[in-house]
Amino acid sequence: MSKHDIKQLIQELVSGDRRALARAITLIESTRADHIEQSHQLLKILMPYAGESIRIGISGVPGVGKSTFIEAFGNHLLEQGKQVAVLAVDPSSSISGGSILGDKTRMETLSTNPRAFIRPSPAGGTLGGVARRTRESILLCEAAGFDVVIVETVGVGQSETMVAGMTDVFLLLLLPAGGDDLQGIKRGILELADIVVINKADGELLNTATRSAADYQNALQYVPSRFTEWSVPIKTCSALEQQGIEEVWQSVQEYVELLKSKGELKARRVEQTQQWMWQETKESLLDALKQNPRVKELLTEVESQIAQQNISASLASQKIIDAFLDDKNS
Amino acid sequence: MSKHDIKQLIQELVSGDRRALARAITLIESTRADHIEQSHQLLKILMPYAGESIRIGISGVPGVGKSTFIEAFGNHLLEQGKQVAVLAVDPSSSISGGSILGDKTRMETLSTNPRAFIRPSPAGGTLGGVARRTRESILLCEAAGFDVVIVETVGVGQSETMVAGMTDVFLLLLLPAGGDDLQGIKRGILELADIVVINKADGELLNTATRSAADYQNALQYVPSRFTEWSVPIKTCSALEQQGIEEVWQSVQEYVELLKSKGELKARRVEQTQQWMWQETKESLLDALKQNPRVKELLTEVESQIAQQNISASLASQKIIDAFLDDKNS
Repeated sequence: MSKHDIKQLIQELVSGDRRALARAITLIESTRADHIEQSHQLLKILMPYAGESIRIGISGVPGVGKSTFIEAFGNHLLEQGKQVAVLAVDPSSSISGGSILGDKTRMETLSTNPRAFIRPSPAGGTLGGVARRTRESILLCEAAGFDVVIVETVGVGQSETMVAGMTDVFLLLLLPAGGDDLQGIKRGILELADIVVINKADGELLNTATRSAADYQNALQYVPSRFTEWSVPIKTCSALEQQGIEEVWQSVQEYVELLKSKGELKARRVEQTQQWMWQETKESLLDALKQNPRVKELLTEVESQIAQQNISASLASQKIIDAFLDDKNS
Repeated sequence: MSKHDIKQLIQELVSGDRRALARAITLIESTRADHIEQSHQLLKILMPYAGESIRIGISGVPGVGKSTFIEAFGNHLLEQGKQVAVLAVDPSSSISGGSILGDKTRMETLSTNPRAFIRPSPAGGTLGGVARRTRESILLCEAAGFDVVIVETVGVGQSETMVAGMTDVFLLLLLPAGGDDLQGIKRGILELADIVVINKADGELLNTATRSAADYQNALQYVPSRFTEWSVPIKTCSALEQQGIEEVWQSVQEYVELLKSKGELKARRVEQTQQWMWQETKESLLDALKQNPRVKELLTEVESQIAQQNISASLASQKIIDAFLDDKNS
């Protein structure tokens, strides 16, 4: 892509052109060295335009009705005059090589609305790579004028922590379920939630949903809130019947207003960027170390010594570091 | 210390001399470059003698009666003919510059027994440094012939994870408390426990302790066990009246036997050493990066750009890595 092309892409993107946004995301998804360089340039120029959306993370296990919820929630926001972008972080798509349910088959009414933008999870790549892409896509969506950016993920642990670390508010969708079934919540995920939403509170499950809300309230006792001045609300809704959606949106707004009024929103975003910077720095450094030929050679030997419980962790580590930095210095 | 001195220290230590053990731990606690080199030599020779103890992590908030419990538990093991070492990981002592209650005033009967060894937390240093010292002290205690090594810590979060990562079995001591008080358990600590022990099940608190056991059992529903074939038992005991101590020891043995029979004990220790090696490697690399003058200079600029939300995490990270590795290469 020439300098001229980048300039044009930026102009189109800032004017709200969804195709330009899609092209820009494709650029930042690329792992080619020149594309990485170009996307750094792109972001550098677009950063001043970013930062104005509400960033919402949404998670829930398969079957919880996440797509239906996001469709109902997104349409509700569109009706309020908002522009809504939906990005997906789906670790399984990294394995299977692409989300089976792309933007065309899922969220049908949302995807056809010109004020909405849906981007499925990129195929392939590491979870760290997907995280980087998603964080930068949020910034691009904001530069393109979207008011609400939803980052969707599935309930498998690591990706939740990542998504919670790049959004302002984290919604956990749960199914109506009683007593013992609560065990199914993955370790650590409940404690990321700023708002818990029990979906499918309709038909036969309506009573179960109400009971569940009480059960989860009990479970949440053991889980401190991420923001001490906020006590995590448990909402019931039916995405299918579009009931309770406005109440969830109200909670999101209340939470974001609280964060803003305490100066927490900006502070949290700055902290998130710092954390990601150090995270990427650590990963890149470790990658450089692991790619180093002298380290590779040594590692075979060291790992067999560890398996024989014949070397301490400290000595093993020192040997590796020395091999890496000596090689760099020589 | 001369080569001859080290050789003698090793001989004395392996023969079970407690003073030699204390001197060896002092050596590995030192941050002097020549001492670090010597302690690597020391450990290299002693590694084949290490590995034969049961490594027990014990945690609980101040006031739970941890010292009394360890004293009762340790004396019980001594009566069974075991040799018991107690190491402390106390982050607060890193701040205050040394544990107020050293080995003389705490655990009085235990500390006077020649088959026991008690070592308070080292003063000063980072939590990472304390962790390294403690992991290596475990190996030294094993080389000196101790059958059971207890690593004690306080209930403040990070140090628990560290201690759980260097031991075979993690005991969490809790106070008898009802209902709402369960909230006081720090996030994530309950899920580290292999065995939960409710202490102070005596006198007026006996009934409360029994009720607590049921309450905690309920809370544990939401917390998966670290080893899927083990369901975390909740024991009540009175360290003061020396009731229930044998039952706790039985649980420890059952758990360790289960780990052994599944090949998990060795596998877990090898995995722990690998994790510590990478942990130390990451920390040392990042330290080297942060100490680099060019990085230091750049960091001031980058952090102010982050605070102004004017740079993406990826670009910030790339700038820092480039400054570090280019400097190394030049």
